[in-house]
Amino acid sequence: MADAALHSEARLTFRVRYVDCDPMGFMHHSHYLPMFEMGRTELLRQTGISYRELEARDVLFTVTKIALNFKKPAHYDDELELLTRIVRQTHVRIEHAYEIYHAATRQLLCTGESTIACINKKGEVQAIPAFLGGQG
Amino acid sequence: MADAALHSEARLTFRVRYVDCDPMGFMHHSHYLPMFEMGRTELLRQTGISYRELEARDVLFTVTKIALNFKKPAHYDDELELLTRIVRQTHVRIEHAYEIYHAATRQLLCTGESTIACINKKGEVQAIPAFLGGQG
Amino acid sequence: MADAALHSEARLTFRVRYVDCDPMGFMHHSHYLPMFEMGRTELLRQTGISYRELEARDVLFTVTKIALNFKKPAHYDDELELLTRIVRQTHVRIEHAYEIYHAATRQLLCTGESTIACINKKGEVQAIPAFLGGQG
Amino acid sequence: MADAALHSEARLTFRVRYVDCDPMGFMHHSHYLPMFEMGRTELLRQTGISYRELEARDVLFTVTKIALNFKKPAHYDDELELLTRIVRQTHVRIEHAYEIYHAATRQLLCTGESTIACINKKGEVQAIPAFLGGQG
Repeated sequence: MADAALHSEARLTFRVRYVDCDPMGFMHHSHYLPMFEMGRTELLRQTGISYRELEARDVLFTVTKIALNFKKPAHYDDELELLTRIVRQTHVRIEHAYEIYHAATRQLLCTGESTIACINKKGEVQAIPAFLGGQG
Repeated sequence: MADAALHSEARLTFRVRYVDCDPMGFMHHSHYLPMFEMGRTELLRQTGISYRELEARDVLFTVTKIALNFKKPAHYDDELELLTRIVRQTHVRIEHAYEIYHAATRQLLCTGESTIACINKKGEVQAIPAFLGGQG
Repeated sequence: MADAALHSEARLTFRVRYVDCDPMGFMHHSHYLPMFEMGRTELLRQTGISYRELEARDVLFTVTKIALNFKKPAHYDDELELLTRIVRQTHVRIEHAYEIYHAATRQLLCTGESTIACINKKGEVQAIPAFLGGQG
Repeated sequence: MADAALHSEARLTFRVRYVDCDPMGFMHHSHYLPMFEMGRTELLRQTGISYRELEARDVLFTVTKIALNFKKPAHYDDELELLTRIVRQTHVRIEHAYEIYHAATRQLLCTGESTIACINKKGEVQAIPAFLGGQG
């Protein structure tokens, strides 16, 4: 893939929603995954293309692996900052890494990594197209 | 619509999930809506057809109105019972009513009503087909 | 309540998340409710107090009624604008009204109204405190 | 921990909800995590204690690590079967493993593993109590 993409990074901020917090008062661990997904979308948008446009061209991505490490809990109304970057790209797969910080204290709350695979609407794996730095 | 369908009723039970409870310890009010949706799906299944089959025939339903009244909160791990029934059917719309009870105490926790409209995959309103008691 | 609060209005923008869209490609109707909740939180913040601070003072609000009307669907990656305002305040209750627009086209997608009641941590109804324009 | 607990296994079935499926028609990957959580709850219930009772005794568990591998997608209205078991227990941590199968075809859709840590309501790590097979 293009060096530019490999070294780029997306920053997004989120306000923790009441609906996403559990009886312990913590943001439930499952709600970090949609944040990661928005990070990937934003990183893609920075390269000048939206995921919505990709879908129109029959280029979809599906998550094949994801892992999270939780260091400190996030609480209701906290402002969080997410950093997303690409760590590796192969013929059909892209690996991302994620860090979520508490915006005010700069404490690291959560890290993650994922692998997504390029598929078409029928669910068949396909090569990542050239305009995304792939060989397809 | 067929009298049978008009008078039928679906019963479903749910266990309140931890992820659906908020810092007050209550099931968040937004999580009643997916339960209502499962009630409609179950009512349909009782008539011998699944919503998945409907989608394959280009018969979709979209919610146009929904209202909820909350009487008592549901808590984590409570078992809830949902009653769903059709209260009215027109050329393109079906109106449902819902009641959610705390299974152990029989207390009524929440009531609701909704209107769904029959559309195709392009999002255009269409008549409810004859096999669903409609005139389309 | 203070006239200022009665006439104030909160504006928030949201990007429709992939996770919130259903197989029809529409944002699922249940996901409007957390947006409304964020609208109420933002309106409160404009009066100089956060809901988190209210909780610390044992002033909680619970939704007792909510109704939604859907006019047009929202799609993945759409930018939405939510307007939230207070329409009525009684001794223990506040009624809000909501409008959600597609930011780019200015089309009205959804309207809603809700009633919230002031409670304490034990779940008992209490008067809205004076610093929120109430008599408690 | 007691051998019985180490070798026990919880089985739960789930119907994939419409609200949990994305525009690809797949159950969104984030929705596997609440299933895993219900698996842990069920496994605990089999030992004769509910997580709700644990909370009342100030024994809480927080997820510190979780990882998922997706093999095949789940679709709307599919019936899924989840197997949950404990693979390791230390002084303050429990590790679980998960497998999700498509109930009708017996295809393995997803595997996962997680680590949870025992904490109190203040968020401090504490030893797992003796009645849960711990030394605390």
